[in-house]
Amino acid sequence: MTDTPRRRPGGPTRRQLLLGGAVAGVGAAAAVGADALTRPGERPAADPAPEPLAGAGTVPFHGAHQAGVATAPQAHVSLVALDLLDGTDRDALRRLMQLLSDDAARLTQGVAALADSEPELAVVPAHLTVTFGFGPELVRRAATGSDAAPSWLRPLPPFTIDRLDPAWSDGDLLLQIASDDPMTVAHAQRMLLKDTRSFATVRWTQAGFRRARGSEASGTTMRNLFGQIDGTVNLEPGTPDFEDLVWVRDGWLAGGTSLVLRRIHMDLDKWDRLDRGGREQSVGRYLSNGAPLTGTHEHDEPDFTATSRIGFPVIPEFSHMRRARSEDTSQRIFRRGYNYDDAPSGDRVSSSGLLFVSYQADVDAQFVPLQRRLDELDLLNEWTTPVGSAVFAIPPGCAEGGYVGETILA
Amino acid sequence: MTDTPRRRPGGPTRRQLLLGGAVAGVGAAAAVGADALTRPGERPAADPAPEPLAGAGTVPFHGAHQAGVATAPQAHVSLVALDLLDGTDRDALRRLMQLLSDDAARLTQGVAALADSEPELAVVPAHLTVTFGFGPELVRRAATGSDAAPSWLRPLPPFTIDRLDPAWSDGDLLLQIASDDPMTVAHAQRMLLKDTRSFATVRWTQAGFRRARGSEASGTTMRNLFGQIDGTVNLEPGTPDFEDLVWVRDGWLAGGTSLVLRRIHMDLDKWDRLDRGGREQSVGRYLSNGAPLTGTHEHDEPDFTATSRIGFPVIPEFSHMRRARSEDTSQRIFRRGYNYDDAPSGDRVSSSGLLFVSYQADVDAQFVPLQRRLDELDLLNEWTTPVGSAVFAIPPGCAEGGYVGETILA
Repeated sequence: MTDTPRRRPGGPTRRQLLLGGAVAGVGAAAAVGADALTRPGERPAADPAPEPLAGAGTVPFHGAHQAGVATAPQAHVSLVALDLLDGTDRDALRRLMQLLSDDAARLTQGVAALADSEPELAVVPAHLTVTFGFGPELVRRAATGSDAAPSWLRPLPPFTIDRLDPAWSDGDLLLQIASDDPMTVAHAQRMLLKDTRSFATVRWTQAGFRRARGSEASGTTMRNLFGQIDGTVNLEPGTPDFEDLVWVRDGWLAGGTSLVLRRIHMDLDKWDRLDRGGREQSVGRYLSNGAPLTGTHEHDEPDFTATSRIGFPVIPEFSHMRRARSEDTSQRIFRRGYNYDDAPSGDRVSSSGLLFVSYQADVDAQFVPLQRRLDELDLLNEWTTPVGSAVFAIPPGCAEGGYVGETILA
Repeated sequence: MTDTPRRRPGGPTRRQLLLGGAVAGVGAAAAVGADALTRPGERPAADPAPEPLAGAGTVPFHGAHQAGVATAPQAHVSLVALDLLDGTDRDALRRLMQLLSDDAARLTQGVAALADSEPELAVVPAHLTVTFGFGPELVRRAATGSDAAPSWLRPLPPFTIDRLDPAWSDGDLLLQIASDDPMTVAHAQRMLLKDTRSFATVRWTQAGFRRARGSEASGTTMRNLFGQIDGTVNLEPGTPDFEDLVWVRDGWLAGGTSLVLRRIHMDLDKWDRLDRGGREQSVGRYLSNGAPLTGTHEHDEPDFTATSRIGFPVIPEFSHMRRARSEDTSQRIFRRGYNYDDAPSGDRVSSSGLLFVSYQADVDAQFVPLQRRLDELDLLNEWTTPVGSAVFAIPPGCAEGGYVGETILA
């Protein structure tokens, strides 16, 4: 499918066939026709081909798993949740996912979407990935007989630390759009959302960022806006543990996973009043390089039994690192979070935090026990507040010619 | 000043001397003390030094002009306008600008600010520049006797196309923070705003982006979210025209310039309904490479006399390119704009536009006539709406040990 030439000067398109009908066809034809530069004799010469650049990097769209999970995190993400219109039934969902998969297959390879209104903005993929997630209502509408929704596909149980705003929570369909180039994210988001117009409305959009590509050596663990190295203990793509604990094994979700989003406000103003020693104790790691307080390098095993000269644990009982860890190695998750930094208002100097994003085969078995431990006791709760929460099923990937969601919608 | 080691384990700092007094000193000392990693025997080993990376690139802070004007545009910008507190008099303004200049001198070189609460976030400058602008009220408070505000330092005259929101307009002090790395912008903004707390409140924050560094060949003219190549006709840093038309010659602003910000909402949904030919006519350029409709390459001179076979001008009378151009070459400006793409709401698919930023020695002589022509007639007005507007005086740069604003505050 991605071999299709970028400009199709005429003839019915797959999109038109999908949409069918004269009404939809007119708009599609007008948009496609716009790609056919006419005016004989006035066509501008092609500019000389540029050297290969970092922006030319691509991630395959097709495969057993959707891209954007095991993919090395790009610098920018936009998470968009949609609410389905009442009339968007199973057949409409199939058309929607066919359209969106087609768009994503092209855009991720630096090829304009069919009927792309700004095809020149599509030529820099910069490792673009588009990952689709299904909320409980979408799966309810999609499921027939034997295709049950996984038991964990529902809002997380309430936690005492939560101060959730519905404006940042839940949703029926998730688009996770990530690229090293913010223009690419903006363009892909726009093209995808145009194709959702007849099916759904935007519920929320959450933008996040990490360091720019090339700012740090690849493989550097990200820092959050508290300055902490964030995500040292993590499953590693390609390892057996990752394969076991991230991908679902059975049913229509086989090869898929789950996504938990927690929008965590970080009170930077309050964090300012904590000294460096206090900051390190709250997590149990050094700020300088993320080493545990009993170690010297980031990935050193912490020694939870070590005590100071006056008998206190070097890694405090209430520290985030100690609370996050379980003796049960099946309770691990794969984290792939982003920072956010929205416009502050009033005398606040920041409205900032973390888009905590994790993937796991089973939310209830892996994420919830972890969150319960942190809800009960975690010194970091003094400075952080979950303000949004959502859970999505991430269907498996698809082959060329297929579409994401076909295992439940076909 | 930038030779100062990143960590000063003790002793009074320049900041403490500037702030003076015990009350301010306590907070400063606590923050500085936090930098001194103690715990003998538990200090983590330094990680191996990484290879030089793109994020290590720096732009000098000190010089005759402030950085961030003639500097090649970075990928990300945050424009922050502050309202001065009633009590921020001329002496307080001097302290404020000394603090902020000191912060900027360090942060732009990849060195933590004094009392930087997250020094590890300061190590990736990624071509960070911090540029300060003074609004009318700041200059009124700063001026003594002979230092008059330039006549153009006031809100722009009203234009019929304006739909201005005060929430995006005006302000007393501008911070223009730009870097190729979004984490760097976030950290620098936070450090700078912390130092403004006692002097001012945030009025607005506007974030913008271009293509990531490395996505395109350097020197590529940016595209806006309409897909148009935006800013082909522009003054070029280093040329005599740039020197003449951008920098102010006399008075306390000599070596400085003016900044006009216009927040221009772009109605992408309406733009969608325009075909490619119509889009090209609205500007007078080809979308593919920005060539004038009478030419083949982006920088070809347009032929405004050329007519089509049926007698109409090839570059329409109402086109943006024709309306923006003046026969008077002294009316040119230097543009350095950014795209914005905020979260859409409801059934809109975008809340997007352009942070139009221009620099010119004289707003009234250069920017206003241009804007008047576009206000009278410009087909692009059908799809664009100015929703914010601000004018700032950009003081000249300073030498090491000096501060921005010293030509009026000293």
